[in-house]
Amino acid sequence: MSTSPAPEGAPDLPIRAAELLDRLRAERVRVHAITNAAAQVFTANLLLAAGGIPSLTVAPEEVASFTGRAGALLVNLGTLDSERRAGIPWAIATARAAKKPWVLDPVFVDASPPRLELARLCLTGGPAVVRCNAGEFAALSGTEAKPEAVQAFAAAHGVVVALTGPVDIVTDGTTVFAIANGHDLMTRVTAMGCAATALVAAFAALATTPAEAAAAALLVMGVAGELAAETAAGPGSFQPALLDALYWLDPDTLRSRSRLA
Amino acid sequence: MSTSPAPEGAPDLPIRAAELLDRLRAERVRVHAITNAAAQVFTANLLLAAGGIPSLTVAPEEVASFTGRAGALLVNLGTLDSERRAGIPWAIATARAAKKPWVLDPVFVDASPPRLELARLCLTGGPAVVRCNAGEFAALSGTEAKPEAVQAFAAAHGVVVALTGPVDIVTDGTTVFAIANGHDLMTRVTAMGCAATALVAAFAALATTPAEAAAAALLVMGVAGELAAETAAGPGSFQPALLDALYWLDPDTLRSRSRLA
Amino acid sequence: MSTSPAPEGAPDLPIRAAELLDRLRAERVRVHAITNAAAQVFTANLLLAAGGIPSLTVAPEEVASFTGRAGALLVNLGTLDSERRAGIPWAIATARAAKKPWVLDPVFVDASPPRLELARLCLTGGPAVVRCNAGEFAALSGTEAKPEAVQAFAAAHGVVVALTGPVDIVTDGTTVFAIANGHDLMTRVTAMGCAATALVAAFAALATTPAEAAAAALLVMGVAGELAAETAAGPGSFQPALLDALYWLDPDTLRSRSRLA
Repeated sequence: MSTSPAPEGAPDLPIRAAELLDRLRAERVRVHAITNAAAQVFTANLLLAAGGIPSLTVAPEEVASFTGRAGALLVNLGTLDSERRAGIPWAIATARAAKKPWVLDPVFVDASPPRLELARLCLTGGPAVVRCNAGEFAALSGTEAKPEAVQAFAAAHGVVVALTGPVDIVTDGTTVFAIANGHDLMTRVTAMGCAATALVAAFAALATTPAEAAAAALLVMGVAGELAAETAAGPGSFQPALLDALYWLDPDTLRSRSRLA
Repeated sequence: MSTSPAPEGAPDLPIRAAELLDRLRAERVRVHAITNAAAQVFTANLLLAAGGIPSLTVAPEEVASFTGRAGALLVNLGTLDSERRAGIPWAIATARAAKKPWVLDPVFVDASPPRLELARLCLTGGPAVVRCNAGEFAALSGTEAKPEAVQAFAAAHGVVVALTGPVDIVTDGTTVFAIANGHDLMTRVTAMGCAATALVAAFAALATTPAEAAAAALLVMGVAGELAAETAAGPGSFQPALLDALYWLDPDTLRSRSRLA
Repeated sequence: MSTSPAPEGAPDLPIRAAELLDRLRAERVRVHAITNAAAQVFTANLLLAAGGIPSLTVAPEEVASFTGRAGALLVNLGTLDSERRAGIPWAIATARAAKKPWVLDPVFVDASPPRLELARLCLTGGPAVVRCNAGEFAALSGTEAKPEAVQAFAAAHGVVVALTGPVDIVTDGTTVFAIANGHDLMTRVTAMGCAATALVAAFAALATTPAEAAAAALLVMGVAGELAAETAAGPGSFQPALLDALYWLDPDTLRSRSRLA
């Protein structure tokens, strides 16, 4: 995917990502994650490996309490059952009221019209970041996921779009980060993108801007994925290896491995 | 378990299984899996490792959309909460209307009378395959799981029965496959049978007959399990090892390892 | 944490724990686990690795059947959605009626007032053991989790408290076990404490007293965790390594590794 030239800030991304990871480990940021049934365990374990503290309830009676004590909120629309439908608006309202960042992952909105409708309603609730793939972006925006369209959508909605694929694109409409890290095995483990969005949320609680948070989180995930692929024997051993790599990831490795397009 | 003699077609099973696995990897078949809470992650990861693309929502508002775009449907009756109860009939109706195969896994019907009742209703919805163990078969059929009873049940209901155990029996009432592959550690990891049924569903979208699909899937699982047991240090490392083995499984290994009774 | 002196029985704990593990492996005790969405898979796999047989449904229509055939019940209050709220009282009532032990894990009651209220109601249902951390104990009891307060709470409610932390304290109000085993990586994998409580439930079906069951289960978990940490490369590989270690754990290792405070 061809992208606009890297902004002034891009060369510093690995440094900023390493700082955010350090702070996450030191401050043990809480993330409340309303996420799908296939992603809950891996999301929790990824946040723990990265230094955060996850909570996962979707119950409408409880999401306000948990969101209120968290530093950021993740709303992932996968396996969108009635309990999740009922819980999501209260969690978003709590995050908004407390001025805490929240991140939207509109999983598979290209597959389900009622889910797409709900994703569009969520978008009006002011997420800091929308993390999606090309198909999901196309469904959400009504346009193909070309760089200019992604920038235009981000600008129009006042949201950072983090579009993942062979090259990840992160933009707030003006600044653009393009991250070429990652490994094919990441597409062979369920919930990898969902868990990446949880890391975006954790970093959003700490970063100066949501774009920096999203780009740093995707860089960290991509590098951890590459490291994991070097020791894994296949998609089964890749998943624990990625958590191990994330747990030990250090600034030098982040810097030397980062491939910004 | 003593079984009727292998049919003419049985010696070709490893070849057909390898072909189905090749096609699954090439065509990336979608499987919509309504499955239990303990099985969702492993089922998704097993389908991804085998080459398929899983989706998992149980919500009645969504199952029709997801089933409609899938090549096959899995209905597993585990952790049968109200959302699953409400979603299952719409998913089955969608698969029937689109003439797509669907596979029933009546988990633990021997443990719960209301679940058994629902399983019997599901059976009238025309599944291509019912995958179960001896206890579940006995509850469902009202007879002990002897080979003749299994064949009679399959013939009477116009369904393939895939009965898993030390030797797996697959029959449409006429043809019988008996597969002796597998490893004891497969009984020490939750949802192994549930995930096997998801592979049956994936193969059912591709195979000439549901019996072939079920026998091929159980052969693939059994061989992958044996390979995994050779590298695993116990049930914990066995699970990722099985996904790795499935990801790399090749026709020669399938052929040389297959043990058809 | 300073604790009262070890009781007469404490030196025998590793021997009794080894006996309980042997019996669990031989008798394949069934445990019905109503537990949170992040814990279901790991809880099932931990029970299977230890020798037990798990079931996990939360549906109110089904919990009585499953609890009725189990040797013990676990009630974990995590991800407390409407289905779990509806199912829990029927499961507890079934266990009480059948005089089977049940164990309460009041996860995160310190984070959610409605959950705390429900935990207090559960406590009146006569659990054999409450397993919690210091924050949860403080919320539940209204007092800081000091040894004397824990003993007083246990005596007042006629319940065994199993308080986990750097040193685990188990007390029925009179006897006190203090177990110093475990490893920091156990705090970096989700649902480790939840799964430990499931092992407490399994042992409660077999042990002479609930205090012995809880202390033995926490000792087994702590030793398995230490063994796993010796081979794990981080929190990702630690989880399967712990299951492997638990599967192979033998009496000599339990005895030589146990560190009772």
